[in-house]
Amino acid sequence: KVNALLLALHDADVAALLENLSVEDRRDLVPLIRLEERPDVLAELDENVRDEVISQLSVAETAAAVASLETDDAVYVLETLDASEQRQVLASIPRLERLLLEEALSYPEDSAGRLMQRELIAVPNFWSVGETIDHLRYMHAQMPDRMPYAFHEIYVVDPGHRLEGSVSLDRLVCAAHAAPLASIMIRELRVLRTDTDQEEVAVLFRKRDLIAAPVVHDTSGRLVGVITIDDVVDVIDETYEDEIMHLGGVGADDLHRHTLATARARFTWLLVNLGTAVLASLVIGMFDATIEHMVALAVLMPIVASMGGNAGTQTLTVFVRALAMRELTTSNALRVIAKELLVGLINGGLFAVIAGGIAWLWFDSPFIAGIIGAAMIINLVVAALAGAIIPLVIERLRVDPAVASAVFVTTVTDVVGFFAFLGLASWFIR
Amino acid sequence: KVNALLLALHDADVAALLENLSVEDRRDLVPLIRLEERPDVLAELDENVRDEVISQLSVAETAAAVASLETDDAVYVLETLDASEQRQVLASIPRLERLLLEEALSYPEDSAGRLMQRELIAVPNFWSVGETIDHLRYMHAQMPDRMPYAFHEIYVVDPGHRLEGSVSLDRLVCAAHAAPLASIMIRELRVLRTDTDQEEVAVLFRKRDLIAAPVVHDTSGRLVGVITIDDVVDVIDETYEDEIMHLGGVGADDLHRHTLATARARFTWLLVNLGTAVLASLVIGMFDATIEHMVALAVLMPIVASMGGNAGTQTLTVFVRALAMRELTTSNALRVIAKELLVGLINGGLFAVIAGGIAWLWFDSPFIAGIIGAAMIINLVVAALAGAIIPLVIERLRVDPAVASAVFVTTVTDVVGFFAFLGLASWFIR
Ligand SMILES: [Mg+2]
Ligand SMILES: [Mg+2]
Ligand SMILES: [Mg+2]
Ligand SMILES: [Mg+2]
Ligand SMILES: [Mg+2]
Ligand SMILES: [Mg+2]
Ligand SMILES: [Mg+2]
Ligand SMILES: [Mg+2]
Ligand SMILES: [Mg+2]
Ligand SMILES: [Mg+2]
Ligand SMILES: [Mg+2]
Ligand SMILES: [Mg+2]
Ligand SMILES: [Mg+2]
Repeated sequence: KVNALLLALHDADVAALLENLSVEDRRDLVPLIRLEERPDVLAELDENVRDEVISQLSVAETAAAVASLETDDAVYVLETLDASEQRQVLASIPRLERLLLEEALSYPEDSAGRLMQRELIAVPNFWSVGETIDHLRYMHAQMPDRMPYAFHEIYVVDPGHRLEGSVSLDRLVCAAHAAPLASIMIRELRVLRTDTDQEEVAVLFRKRDLIAAPVVHDTSGRLVGVITIDDVVDVIDETYEDEIMHLGGVGADDLHRHTLATARARFTWLLVNLGTAVLASLVIGMFDATIEHMVALAVLMPIVASMGGNAGTQTLTVFVRALAMRELTTSNALRVIAKELLVGLINGGLFAVIAGGIAWLWFDSPFIAGIIGAAMIINLVVAALAGAIIPLVIERLRVDPAVASAVFVTTVTDVVGFFAFLGLASWFIR
Repeated sequence: KVNALLLALHDADVAALLENLSVEDRRDLVPLIRLEERPDVLAELDENVRDEVISQLSVAETAAAVASLETDDAVYVLETLDASEQRQVLASIPRLERLLLEEALSYPEDSAGRLMQRELIAVPNFWSVGETIDHLRYMHAQMPDRMPYAFHEIYVVDPGHRLEGSVSLDRLVCAAHAAPLASIMIRELRVLRTDTDQEEVAVLFRKRDLIAAPVVHDTSGRLVGVITIDDVVDVIDETYEDEIMHLGGVGADDLHRHTLATARARFTWLLVNLGTAVLASLVIGMFDATIEHMVALAVLMPIVASMGGNAGTQTLTVFVRALAMRELTTSNALRVIAKELLVGLINGGLFAVIAGGIAWLWFDSPFIAGIIGAAMIINLVVAALAGAIIPLVIERLRVDPAVASAVFVTTVTDVVGFFAFLGLASWFIR
């Protein structure tokens, strides 16, 4: 019964099912799936779950599954194995396939060379539309295993297998039987290379509404692979996922990680936060005499810091986003920073009045109201500046701004918030 | 010179150029672009910038541009006009085209009916592969304006124009000339309807690695449109963009909004935050006598609150993400919540020791060390619970958990952090 049910499910649904099960149930289900025959399930699994599932398979089973995947998915699965497992599995894969996979693994991580599949249709530049269709029909009938599972364009190459152009299938089927391919092909202006970063690949696909793009070897210039949109969508998902997780202070894929691994990953981030919190406490400690003298300051001081933290996070979010989408350029950066400062000044002024009013009513003290208002303006302008500049600086240092910006920005707004509020108070009280 | 330069640029690059210019430069450039002839530039523009650009065009120019777009892009542009502009522009569009656009606009916002284009290839269910290719060649040669700009599949329909199946172009070109379409078509199991939500559309495209999908009318069941992957990628981008912006407390599209509109949008969020900060201050105010008696408490109290806020945000991020990706189900929710609690307990214990150690060294007081440790454990466990439960509850209430969760979670961790730390201290001091 389970078998019939599994057969009726799409590979992606089997993967989702495995992800949702508990560790024990998963262990029981894996042997029933016959993954050697449904290798795509492996490619669809979340990394942590895939690790677990593969540990239940023999080297021969894993090798059989990997060998029957298209090369891009095979590489994707191989990437998650540790070095010795990877060597064992590769050793059990037929030579020709193995060489392709080893070449792919030799390209940099997160490059077009890793993302592309080797299976593609390339035809000589002197063929006609009719010859090409006849060739496709012949290949499909006689050697279907040498065809990609799906393809959307064919590539026109010279005798040295260098790319001359691409022909989308809609152009191919609409063109006259006798038309030469050269007359309908698009000469690729922006060709991806094996060493192109995968986020650059995603930018190109988005801008040009591509569904597939050829990849040429970074040194020889020969056509070596094709990247398809479904894998670019996975890159897009992964990139956003990382950005959201990093902004939230978590490592990616946290849902399927083990408890201890999760606790350890989060510990690091919390430790950094403890450091900044202690820094803020040191600032407060500088003014302990003032607080003892006027305890209302202790009651109100988190307000200024918290408003600064939130305003800074708003600006930061916009800037991290714009950097990720390549929308911040040297030509507009200054203008956008100036706008943020103005927004900080406007909202700083408004909240100076509101928070000052609350403080006045609560403690019946125009002095405290004035102090909290002044501190609010200072901190919201500083928050805008920090939220805008810090991601830009971190990006320049070639660190992912989503990872490190938030902690710096809130440290700045905490320190400035407490220092401005308590400092102004003690300066005037003195 | 500018004209030659503009002609050499891809529509998407012209749009990016416009977005990067200052308001004044943009106003000067727009008339040079001749948007009636390059309507795709309009469709590629950011919403705020598009508004500005369209305000420079006459109704006739806008209508000409909209009419020459494919229907999905036309609808997308029309959506951003206000009701009266929309009516004026529609009135200037040729009748047949107008009816299609009005029908599309009658479907719910963010539905498949809005996302689909009407231009598609549908053929009768009794045709062969050869007849179909001949038809495509004939149409392309004789009436190219009745063809979609690009297509990846053709759809097989019955005489009532009801969808029977789809044939991808790679299957079409590989099949024998005489093969009936019915023998190679895929019978669509999961058909999109005009009222399907666009995020459901994105989930389906991802799961099935689709590049196009047919849409049938929600009541008549007739084939009415096709959704292509490039537009789904835009939906994916938009969804993530919204999630990130909402988690950061900003409205989408902030980079290109005017200063005052930006300030107002952020004001609302900051006002909510002020409310929660005042709530936290009220909690502190309950213990002002204790603070006056032991000012070290005021120095250290932000640490517990801040650690709770960060830990809660971590859990929240994982849960909001999992909800968005439909990875949280009733079958795994309890297990994942239990894991979060355990992670909170582990890290709570560790940071109780660390923060307690710091407090002991700093103030030479085992009493304060014990209090901060106990409060830390309480707040990190509460943070885990709040970070997990609050997004689930908000999702149940059919509100976007990314918008509202963060403020609730940090309110809880601030209130509990201050209350636990100061409350324990005053209870023991008493
Ligand atoms: Mg996943
Ligand atoms: Mg293979
Ligand atoms: Mg990767
Ligand atoms: Mg696009
Ligand atoms: Mg692939
Ligand atoms: Mg894939
Ligand atoms: Mg944009
Ligand atoms: Mg049209
Ligand atoms: Mg929309
Ligand atoms: Mg996929
Ligand atoms: Mg479209
Ligand atoms: Mg589009
Ligand atoms: Mg805080």
